[in-house]
Amino acid sequence: MEMQLLWVLVLAGLSGILAQTDLYQKVFVFRNDPSNAYVRVQTKPEQPLQNFTVCLRSFSDQTRPYGLFSYASKAHDSEILIFKLKSGEYRLYVGGEFVMYHVPENRMDWDHVCASWESAMGLATFWINGKPLPRKGLQKGYFISAEAMILLGQKQDGYGGSFDPYNSLTGEMADVYMWEYVLSPAQMRAAYLSLRLPPCALGWRNLQYEIKGDVVVKPRLRESVVL
Amino acid sequence: MEMQLLWVLVLAGLSGILAQTDLYQKVFVFRNDPSNAYVRVQTKPEQPLQNFTVCLRSFSDQTRPYGLFSYASKAHDSEILIFKLKSGEYRLYVGGEFVMYHVPENRMDWDHVCASWESAMGLATFWINGKPLPRKGLQKGYFISAEAMILLGQKQDGYGGSFDPYNSLTGEMADVYMWEYVLSPAQMRAAYLSLRLPPCALGWRNLQYEIKGDVVVKPRLRESVVL
Amino acid sequence: MEMQLLWVLVLAGLSGILAQTDLYQKVFVFRNDPSNAYVRVQTKPEQPLQNFTVCLRSFSDQTRPYGLFSYASKAHDSEILIFKLKSGEYRLYVGGEFVMYHVPENRMDWDHVCASWESAMGLATFWINGKPLPRKGLQKGYFISAEAMILLGQKQDGYGGSFDPYNSLTGEMADVYMWEYVLSPAQMRAAYLSLRLPPCALGWRNLQYEIKGDVVVKPRLRESVVL
Amino acid sequence: MEMQLLWVLVLAGLSGILAQTDLYQKVFVFRNDPSNAYVRVQTKPEQPLQNFTVCLRSFSDQTRPYGLFSYASKAHDSEILIFKLKSGEYRLYVGGEFVMYHVPENRMDWDHVCASWESAMGLATFWINGKPLPRKGLQKGYFISAEAMILLGQKQDGYGGSFDPYNSLTGEMADVYMWEYVLSPAQMRAAYLSLRLPPCALGWRNLQYEIKGDVVVKPRLRESVVL
Amino acid sequence: MEMQLLWVLVLAGLSGILAQTDLYQKVFVFRNDPSNAYVRVQTKPEQPLQNFTVCLRSFSDQTRPYGLFSYASKAHDSEILIFKLKSGEYRLYVGGEFVMYHVPENRMDWDHVCASWESAMGLATFWINGKPLPRKGLQKGYFISAEAMILLGQKQDGYGGSFDPYNSLTGEMADVYMWEYVLSPAQMRAAYLSLRLPPCALGWRNLQYEIKGDVVVKPRLRESVVL
Repeated sequence: MEMQLLWVLVLAGLSGILAQTDLYQKVFVFRNDPSNAYVRVQTKPEQPLQNFTVCLRSFSDQTRPYGLFSYASKAHDSEILIFKLKSGEYRLYVGGEFVMYHVPENRMDWDHVCASWESAMGLATFWINGKPLPRKGLQKGYFISAEAMILLGQKQDGYGGSFDPYNSLTGEMADVYMWEYVLSPAQMRAAYLSLRLPPCALGWRNLQYEIKGDVVVKPRLRESVVL
Repeated sequence: MEMQLLWVLVLAGLSGILAQTDLYQKVFVFRNDPSNAYVRVQTKPEQPLQNFTVCLRSFSDQTRPYGLFSYASKAHDSEILIFKLKSGEYRLYVGGEFVMYHVPENRMDWDHVCASWESAMGLATFWINGKPLPRKGLQKGYFISAEAMILLGQKQDGYGGSFDPYNSLTGEMADVYMWEYVLSPAQMRAAYLSLRLPPCALGWRNLQYEIKGDVVVKPRLRESVVL
Repeated sequence: MEMQLLWVLVLAGLSGILAQTDLYQKVFVFRNDPSNAYVRVQTKPEQPLQNFTVCLRSFSDQTRPYGLFSYASKAHDSEILIFKLKSGEYRLYVGGEFVMYHVPENRMDWDHVCASWESAMGLATFWINGKPLPRKGLQKGYFISAEAMILLGQKQDGYGGSFDPYNSLTGEMADVYMWEYVLSPAQMRAAYLSLRLPPCALGWRNLQYEIKGDVVVKPRLRESVVL
Repeated sequence: MEMQLLWVLVLAGLSGILAQTDLYQKVFVFRNDPSNAYVRVQTKPEQPLQNFTVCLRSFSDQTRPYGLFSYASKAHDSEILIFKLKSGEYRLYVGGEFVMYHVPENRMDWDHVCASWESAMGLATFWINGKPLPRKGLQKGYFISAEAMILLGQKQDGYGGSFDPYNSLTGEMADVYMWEYVLSPAQMRAAYLSLRLPPCALGWRNLQYEIKGDVVVKPRLRESVVL
Repeated sequence: MEMQLLWVLVLAGLSGILAQTDLYQKVFVFRNDPSNAYVRVQTKPEQPLQNFTVCLRSFSDQTRPYGLFSYASKAHDSEILIFKLKSGEYRLYVGGEFVMYHVPENRMDWDHVCASWESAMGLATFWINGKPLPRKGLQKGYFISAEAMILLGQKQDGYGGSFDPYNSLTGEMADVYMWEYVLSPAQMRAAYLSLRLPPCALGWRNLQYEIKGDVVVKPRLRESVVL
């Protein structure tokens, strides 16, 4: 495992081709507050998206806003963005527009979120800790550009950069996954429970990633499947 | 099921005669906020009402007011209206007059409501998630006009229209039923628990409906009988 | 049962002699808000009281004050009065003086109360949902006048009348009982649990009552013994 | 029992020699608010104290301050004083100085407290409902005068009197005990649970007491050992 | 045990060489508020630290700030400092810099904390009652000076002194441990549960300590392994 990690870091210096690592039982720790650090991740195939699901876990005691998953294209900084505005409120952006989701406040624990969207009906679904919130309308008929820069822990205000260090994550992140379709309710629950998942465009067990700045990979501290 | 749905949409274009669809395990998603969208539903027989029960489930994180079930006649915009004023407060209108019901706040979950009314004693009963609230006096001796326009997700301020888009539902609705009499307590609980229900004037398993605007029919996301 | 009820209503028109009815599984619904309606009840023997217990259940979502049990004599409007001042606070009056009792707020459920008083020690006891509150001193050595007008759902500000319609009950009441002595703790709990009760001066199973105004007798909606 | 009580009352008129009564399953009810009433109790041996434990139960819905156990000498009004300042805060005085203890607020139930103190280390311990609070420093090396006036339900501002009627208890008190040493943790828990207790200087099962003013002895209303 | 304690006190007068005592089932009680008292403890080997874990339990109802574990060098007053700022907020200092940790408020119970830090990644971890909080970045590459003055119950604002008596602990402390490495998650949980622990630089079962001022050693009052 240690050698694999080393190998990744060597490759990361090359032009955008990232090696794959199995991050099972590991987490990213975003150390600083405020911060310009991030983790760049890469999906396998690159084609325009009409549907997607993004899932991840995060753990932070920040009260200021922070970006979790930021997928920017040259057309839109926030093609896909999962953003925590404040305790009790998430935002999901698609193509620069967003819907809000209210969640329980101040849990002082890991949160698992899955956000999905389908272009045909223009519907966004947000699952928090295995439970769906009311679906909302968002960007019916829209196409998400394929040429993407995907960063964890920041909100891109420009393609691949222009961060507000006060919108960065300070805390931990794990179990990041992306699919190019909408998961079924049973699959959403499986993601929350760390059960077997279908093939994905981007996955924690074979993640292509590059760390920029003060982010470290550490073993997770809890035994529970839901962290 | 898919073909049945198509057939309904074709018929919906015709003059007010709506086909029947079984919406078992389905929900309406009201996508927009604010919105002019609604679902028109139709009861089987049309005759003046001296008693009724209306049940439905809804799921929304809106904080502004919204109409759930709006039954308008030419005499009154709010012959029957189930209206959520704010977190913790419902209103039931009969013949343009209303009573208020206090309910627990901020459940962040589906709410099941059954509202019933009987003209002879002028009594309105409101059940929330299988539990009755104190009965209240409303419109003793009143007759509800039969010629009705029944819309879901809006509050009619005129017969079949004149919506305030800020009184519309954004969220999900399911299991809409109407009876021309007052259900027994056991039947009210059966409606909450999705158990076998008596024959109804309007029912989710054979709903005659027409969608206007941005409302979509989707599978429900939870397995539980009470959503 | 229906015939018995009819018979009562006929007799009620006569001069103060009320028939007996078994109100098992029934409730009074006080429909209006504000209201001048009430239910007059009658005890069997009439003699000055040195001890009493009054028990009843009520269910209301009112936030303004309301009278539950009002026993007036020509000497005092509030010989005995059980009064809900606001959420979380009851008052018990004996001979025009009162003590306050703090109870849990906003239960959104039926409340069962038993109030007792004994002249010899001047002690008032208040039980809420089967649990006693701290006993308080009230009217030591006092005699409650026998010639009484007992009304439910109002506070008498004069013998048999002078109501403030904003001190009336809107909601439901059931299981009204009165004894001319102080019940034992076991009997208080039995009253809360709807178990077998000792012979009483005024009881729900053979209530002599007369309805004035908008109060209706309806079946109760819950199955539980404690409503 | 009744005869024993009578015998006590006769003796109470004599010069300070009080008979013993078993108050098992009984409580003192302090009727008035405000009040000058109290119960005087007497310990068996009288000698200067270097250690003590006092336990008692009380039940009151008062929001103003009240004295529970007041042990005054000619040197200090508050040689020992257990004082409830407000919801959530007790004070323990030794030799006129005090420490504060924070407890859960608004339980609307009986509270059992045990306060102990040892001169050698100057340590005061406060147990609330069977659970110890952080120990605090108080009056190291101090001797409590033996010639004492011990009153329940008041705070003495002078030897045997000078009460502030707004610092009196209105409510119920039971299971008053005093030992001339510090109980072990197991004994503290036994006192809370009404289990067998070691020999005491002052005890509820053979209490020497005298009532002054409006305090009455009544059976307790709850069956539970912890009232 | 008593003789061992005496022997410690004798030795404590000597020049900084402290005897070892097994404090199993014992606690330090910090009596005064405000206070200049403290307990000095000593680690076995003395060498610069690149990693550490400190665990301890404390019980206090103070609302003002207080120092729990203060490790000062001549370079920095707060080489290591565990500081409770207020209800719900701890601070961990390393080399004079700190990170904050939010914890549940007002538990009115013992708190077990473990703080660890590793220089290589500059990561600080804080466990509260057996549960980790989000890791934070702190002093990457820093070396903690070996020549240390370690005090319990105060915050050193100068090497071995300069206390603010309003930053002192009033309350109880127990189970103080220090390791010169970061414990594994399983070991952190073992510390919380009082299970078998690995060899330590400073430990409760063989503590070298010296009391200055009003601190006393007492048996603990609760039986539970987690106090």
